[in-house]
Amino acid sequence: MTAPLYLEDLSPGRRFSAGPVTVDEAELIAFAQRYDPQPFHTDPVAAANHPLFKGLAASGWHTAAMTMRMIVDAMGAIAGGVIGGGGDLQWPRPTRAGDVLTLDVEILEAAPSRSRPERGSALIRYRTLNQAGEEVQVFTARAVVPRRPASA
Amino acid sequence: MTAPLYLEDLSPGRRFSAGPVTVDEAELIAFAQRYDPQPFHTDPVAAANHPLFKGLAASGWHTAAMTMRMIVDAMGAIAGGVIGGGGDLQWPRPTRAGDVLTLDVEILEAAPSRSRPERGSALIRYRTLNQAGEEVQVFTARAVVPRRPASA
Repeated sequence: MTAPLYLEDLSPGRRFSAGPVTVDEAELIAFAQRYDPQPFHTDPVAAANHPLFKGLAASGWHTAAMTMRMIVDAMGAIAGGVIGGGGDLQWPRPTRAGDVLTLDVEILEAAPSRSRPERGSALIRYRTLNQAGEEVQVFTARAVVPRRPASA
Repeated sequence: MTAPLYLEDLSPGRRFSAGPVTVDEAELIAFAQRYDPQPFHTDPVAAANHPLFKGLAASGWHTAAMTMRMIVDAMGAIAGGVIGGGGDLQWPRPTRAGDVLTLDVEILEAAPSRSRPERGSALIRYRTLNQAGEEVQVFTARAVVPRRPASA
């Protein structure tokens, strides 16, 4: 068990990391067949001939889901859970079968709520990197984070 | 088979729709166990006691994945596929087991590329609604879209 993290623990500049996670081709295809059934995500031969992808690529939403698993591993100690209302999501390049992904998290801002004394919000950047250190996803999002109780 | 859609077909203001999709509780829990293992997504009893969720809620990434399936159903006729580099993702309220989701798509902008004569980009807003017509997700994103070939 890790001690719970509160807003006061999320100083701007603080970093967290998680992974590695290896992208499994069978899971990549199964995810896409269920949620994003397009040939460049489900069919290695069709994908090889696609002018943009030039090979099988994970659904961006699968990259996002694998990233969330790493976020929970890295940040799950946040008291109350990792809860966000959305953010800016970018996929600079495709995720490929066999890629080895890691997560690099940086706290950008953290501030108490003006109206709710028991909580605050943090602006967090989650970068998902492949084995070459290249960004496959950058998600920048606000999270709701409890403040440390006086008794804690 | 639907005729392929090109940039010229995506006039600002044009709308597309898809769904309904009913959110299955077993799938909601299985998705979260794999990709977002937090008690408010995996355990109905713990979720009922969570101060923000007050009941089992789908992972936002599961809402996004179910939405992508509806996007492919609605827009899969886009020549070359529905391909984006990211966008702004918002989850205004939780998705619940048993919710009946629909997709409302609106083309906001469409413009040819200045450097690549064969393609352009469209700014598209994808709203995911529950059975009460409330937004559970709003994703606003640019898509790469081929222009209609002279021969088509």
